[in-house]
Amino acid sequence: MERLGIPSVMVTDGPHGLRKQSGSGDHLGLLDSVPATCFPSAAGLACSWDADLVYQVGVALGEECQAEDVSVLLGPGANIKRSPLCGRNFEYFSEDPYLSSEMAAAHINGVQSQGVGTSLKHFAVNNQEHRRMTVNAVVDERTLREIYLASFEGAVVKAQPWTVMSAYNQVNGAFASENNRLLTEILKEEWGHEGFVVSNWGAVNERVAGLAAGLELEMPSSNGAGDRKIVEAVQNGILSEEALNDAVERILTVVFKAVDNKKENAVYDADAHHQLATKVASESMVLLKNEQAILPLPKSGSIAVIGAFANAPRYQGGGSSHIKPSKLDNTFEEITRAAGETAQLSYAQGYKLETDELDEHLLEEAKDKAGSADAAILFIGLPDRYESEGYDRQHLNIPDNQRTLIEAVAEVQKNLVIVLSNGAPIVMPWLGKAKAVLEGYLGGQAAGGAIAALLFGDANPCGKLAETFPVKLSDNPSFLNFPGEGDIVEYKEGVFVGYRYYDTKEIEPLFPFGFGLSYTSFAYSNLKISSEELTDKDSVTVSVDVTNTGARTGKEIVQLYVRDAVSTVKRPSKELKGFAKLELQPGETKTATFELGKRAFAYYNVDLKDWHVESGLFDIMVGSSSREIADRVSVNVQSTVNIRKTVTLNTTFGDLLSDPERAVIANGMLQQFSEGSGMMSSLMEDAPEMMTAMLNFMPLRALAMFSQGSVSEEAIHGIIAKMNENL
Amino acid sequence: MERLGIPSVMVTDGPHGLRKQSGSGDHLGLLDSVPATCFPSAAGLACSWDADLVYQVGVALGEECQAEDVSVLLGPGANIKRSPLCGRNFEYFSEDPYLSSEMAAAHINGVQSQGVGTSLKHFAVNNQEHRRMTVNAVVDERTLREIYLASFEGAVVKAQPWTVMSAYNQVNGAFASENNRLLTEILKEEWGHEGFVVSNWGAVNERVAGLAAGLELEMPSSNGAGDRKIVEAVQNGILSEEALNDAVERILTVVFKAVDNKKENAVYDADAHHQLATKVASESMVLLKNEQAILPLPKSGSIAVIGAFANAPRYQGGGSSHIKPSKLDNTFEEITRAAGETAQLSYAQGYKLETDELDEHLLEEAKDKAGSADAAILFIGLPDRYESEGYDRQHLNIPDNQRTLIEAVAEVQKNLVIVLSNGAPIVMPWLGKAKAVLEGYLGGQAAGGAIAALLFGDANPCGKLAETFPVKLSDNPSFLNFPGEGDIVEYKEGVFVGYRYYDTKEIEPLFPFGFGLSYTSFAYSNLKISSEELTDKDSVTVSVDVTNTGARTGKEIVQLYVRDAVSTVKRPSKELKGFAKLELQPGETKTATFELGKRAFAYYNVDLKDWHVESGLFDIMVGSSSREIADRVSVNVQSTVNIRKTVTLNTTFGDLLSDPERAVIANGMLQQFSEGSGMMSSLMEDAPEMMTAMLNFMPLRALAMFSQGSVSEEAIHGIIAKMNENL
Repeated sequence: MERLGIPSVMVTDGPHGLRKQSGSGDHLGLLDSVPATCFPSAAGLACSWDADLVYQVGVALGEECQAEDVSVLLGPGANIKRSPLCGRNFEYFSEDPYLSSEMAAAHINGVQSQGVGTSLKHFAVNNQEHRRMTVNAVVDERTLREIYLASFEGAVVKAQPWTVMSAYNQVNGAFASENNRLLTEILKEEWGHEGFVVSNWGAVNERVAGLAAGLELEMPSSNGAGDRKIVEAVQNGILSEEALNDAVERILTVVFKAVDNKKENAVYDADAHHQLATKVASESMVLLKNEQAILPLPKSGSIAVIGAFANAPRYQGGGSSHIKPSKLDNTFEEITRAAGETAQLSYAQGYKLETDELDEHLLEEAKDKAGSADAAILFIGLPDRYESEGYDRQHLNIPDNQRTLIEAVAEVQKNLVIVLSNGAPIVMPWLGKAKAVLEGYLGGQAAGGAIAALLFGDANPCGKLAETFPVKLSDNPSFLNFPGEGDIVEYKEGVFVGYRYYDTKEIEPLFPFGFGLSYTSFAYSNLKISSEELTDKDSVTVSVDVTNTGARTGKEIVQLYVRDAVSTVKRPSKELKGFAKLELQPGETKTATFELGKRAFAYYNVDLKDWHVESGLFDIMVGSSSREIADRVSVNVQSTVNIRKTVTLNTTFGDLLSDPERAVIANGMLQQFSEGSGMMSSLMEDAPEMMTAMLNFMPLRALAMFSQGSVSEEAIHGIIAKMNENL
Repeated sequence: MERLGIPSVMVTDGPHGLRKQSGSGDHLGLLDSVPATCFPSAAGLACSWDADLVYQVGVALGEECQAEDVSVLLGPGANIKRSPLCGRNFEYFSEDPYLSSEMAAAHINGVQSQGVGTSLKHFAVNNQEHRRMTVNAVVDERTLREIYLASFEGAVVKAQPWTVMSAYNQVNGAFASENNRLLTEILKEEWGHEGFVVSNWGAVNERVAGLAAGLELEMPSSNGAGDRKIVEAVQNGILSEEALNDAVERILTVVFKAVDNKKENAVYDADAHHQLATKVASESMVLLKNEQAILPLPKSGSIAVIGAFANAPRYQGGGSSHIKPSKLDNTFEEITRAAGETAQLSYAQGYKLETDELDEHLLEEAKDKAGSADAAILFIGLPDRYESEGYDRQHLNIPDNQRTLIEAVAEVQKNLVIVLSNGAPIVMPWLGKAKAVLEGYLGGQAAGGAIAALLFGDANPCGKLAETFPVKLSDNPSFLNFPGEGDIVEYKEGVFVGYRYYDTKEIEPLFPFGFGLSYTSFAYSNLKISSEELTDKDSVTVSVDVTNTGARTGKEIVQLYVRDAVSTVKRPSKELKGFAKLELQPGETKTATFELGKRAFAYYNVDLKDWHVESGLFDIMVGSSSREIADRVSVNVQSTVNIRKTVTLNTTFGDLLSDPERAVIANGMLQQFSEGSGMMSSLMEDAPEMMTAMLNFMPLRALAMFSQGSVSEEAIHGIIAKMNENL
């Protein structure tokens, strides 16, 4: 807007790479864009559990934005993986809000360190593609706070993204794009977000209601229609001028920050970024199985490389994040290079990517090559058409032709290694047929080189799963409530998302959250806490030693989980509250140290409208996955908050007896009751468990009846008033 | 009330036997009562799946009431077994509302055939003892209708109980005793209940509010306090005189019906009732395991009978239903008699009932006797203190001393038969140690004789489980939400209760719903339906032949389940809609016939506020348990109800396209959109799955934006108006 001296800035899609389109763009991410480095998508990136590395990715993305004159990169996505079916899971980090928010914060800090903004998305509770533009996600407040908002909260507080992108869906009855509670009360007021909120593309329902609720920028342009409505609303007094001014100020602040931070003639080193992409891919991939230490493979003998993905890798997902890579590894070529000249490699396509139908010819060729080799590497995964922005998967299976291929190859070759390309969990009924499984996720443009290095031991696997792989779809906590009925999806599983559910319900996963193998081994020892007694205002330091007990240098991701031993609200049997990635030489020992404050022990108390620690014992567990706890220690945390409820006619004696002051009065009443009722003592003798329970669960009002008049209603009212005196 | 000529009548506790107390009574069921026949409690009774037999029990109870001058028997209980932990589950029939309501109706019809009233209890949603007098059960309307109310509905409609007893708890925020929706709108107006509602003892919260909501009778007496409040409310105009008159009329109608039906000098045949109790117990017990056909035992050789329960049987539960039996079988004596003179029996106590502590002396004695015998029968179960009205269990384990006993005896005796006494499921980590397990539930005063007859083959087991036995507690659907937090318990599992959950979530139970073994075997054949196409106004007849393929006469309980093949609401993978118990001689074939009407296919549609059948295919499955489906057939049911929603700016194209009339207009709009937008066809070619999904999920409002102005907002409003014309 030249007249007012307001410059224009460009925003582009792409959390794992820049998607700058030439011309007007298509808003949907399918037309061509300028080349950019394609890093592993978030699902893989999170498996690195390495905030420094994710920061470096952010820096690289920021450099590319500067070079391409892009001011704001539309990412990262911090939505929680509620169901493995969500078509956009490949763009999200984790089922755990702590891990997710740490990864998102590192990403944002990296990008923004280069004077380029980010847009933390999709705020909030956008956990499915099915009916995403209209569906209403119904979530209770505690679940919102502990799971779905927590994933954004940490990123906003720690990294202050220049912008936040509101989601398409409704949250508890109001569109995210016009949800005052989310955009203003929580994001801006509670968390202190200073930037602006931009709508997801086409997410605006009512422009004026959105602006009033805290949505500053409508995207894409409505060709002036939205602006006209705003002007009209201000003129009619429906929207205050202050609200509009505030919105304009928030937008202009970011625009001028972008302009001020613009680096003229910036360039970036595409080769260095490709190398970084290789490193990140290598640190993100997860070794799920390695029977008889078949991996790493020797660089000799004959190896059959099978599967269309080896030649046409699937390295990114479909939709708005789809980019044009600056360079693309061919996996078969990378494997050939890594194996060196002493090995004989052959390739067979095995299946067609564009269909689930079996191709007998390709199958026979694959069997022939696999059968005559010393080992086979099978490239398996989900084709593009199986997962994408825009729609959810219907099941967790790989295409039938790939499953048949695995079974056929396994018949002729026992040394079978499977490498997976997929953006989200699959089921593996064929797992027993393979000696090794390497989960590659969507590993970006350098996935091929990373896979080759890992297979032959030039790199040591060190990624761990950022999400649970279930044995079957119906094990998933959202199974009975996904993707909802009509335009309502109820999050009835509550806070029991991911491992919080599998562990509490004692459901054996295929692979647990936090799980991943290495070519070396690690031992935990010397778990220590700085104090065994603290209040909810203190923090405690936890440390544990980790030793590389194997023969190779490797990295271990140490995880810390907390459990409330006894709680009046239902809490998960385990919640991630810290993690550290340590690189260790053979025989080397390092110490992982964690600081736990109030939030590590608290749940969100909806009555207090605040985080609350319930006094008592907490278990602190450290281990190598959510299911492999190496050691645990207890700490006693005392609350400094006094929760005292008003006594009413329906307050139970049990509740009164659990409060020291009130117990004195309550006991007096029970005494009077017993004396007035001759049968009490004989009843207590006959069935003490029942009588104790009955008294505990008896509300004050029932005393008049059970005492057969010996305690009057008036007397009870008097006692209630007395008990409420010291509130 | 002599002045007005109103006689007094007596009501007593006890659905499975009469509990008439002498003197004033204790309201809690613990003091002495007059002797009466103790039949198996409801948990066992329901395993007979035999409505005729339950009717006979009702007749016998009615006779005893007449003899004891009792006008209304306070039962049966039709609450659903939501969690196996509920302390009062032994008094309830099933986890399935259809089976439960059929059993309750038969019980009521039996009692009332004798001119004695019943009180169907505890209405409603009283599924736990924990905080039962104050807790608020939060249940969505569909779940209420399909599960928790359905169990009462069938009984009210089919048997018209003289009275209904309101529960202690709150339902969706209003005490059941003052819940107008439950007591008046649903019970009286929808279901046509003609009798009166009585409060559970002490359940009245506010007397006037209760009366206004449809609670006629307060129990026990508040010594005039309640009456004074009513008079005052009428005088103040808070309560209408009509409402009071209606309540008085409902009470007096029942009182006079009781007086009119009183049989003077009635007596009953206690021996005949004991014989009936034996038959019922025998038909109710469930043979859960019978490896190598170890049962029936030969009437020869040496048998060690072990366990305190063999000498002091647990045959009923604690609380208000606890009665004084007219006669009580000693199980060891019955076994001795049944085994006859050619067998040598020994007895060892094995454990103490009053403690979980191991008694080494008793254990050694048991091992000695078991080790030197040809077989051992081990009596195992839950002591009185483990389950009772008033409190819930905390776990599903048997006492530790009993578990140790099983393991110790199994070491010395491979021919191990376990007989269980318990009111609700237990876990059985020791199951592999026993060759046979007979579930005796709480079998009433004649349990001993029934057990003896079943063990030696004088009777053939024919009961089947009316509830699922889970492998572990955490498998239960209510696990994450039981017994709630403070005074709120949310039924988040919804309609997925019991086998509806285990089957839909594909969780392997220890023993499935409907399961039970026999000493003979059965084959299913010739499944037929009267029509493959019907509307929701028709009914269909299903028949299946069952043949006794074994060598003994036996009874098979044939079960019919229905599944909606495709549904827009989440429905269980199986719902019981019919059952039949057939007695078959060896080689004999009989036909089981079922009539299925609208309700067999319908779910409760909360928008319609009515039962609704969604057009399409339904699977009809018949089998011997919920997990053993012998055969299935499909039927196509067409709805005669037209559900058409108002089109709004947020109606999606997918929804419009699924409606033939609207599809024409919607297709026209999409056509215009495509033409106006040059990129559409190339996008559709690049990623057809994504574009199709995006269009399907796109709301009308988004068309203006995505068409970049080629379709105006005004045009969209016009089209919406047109689409809503024919509503």
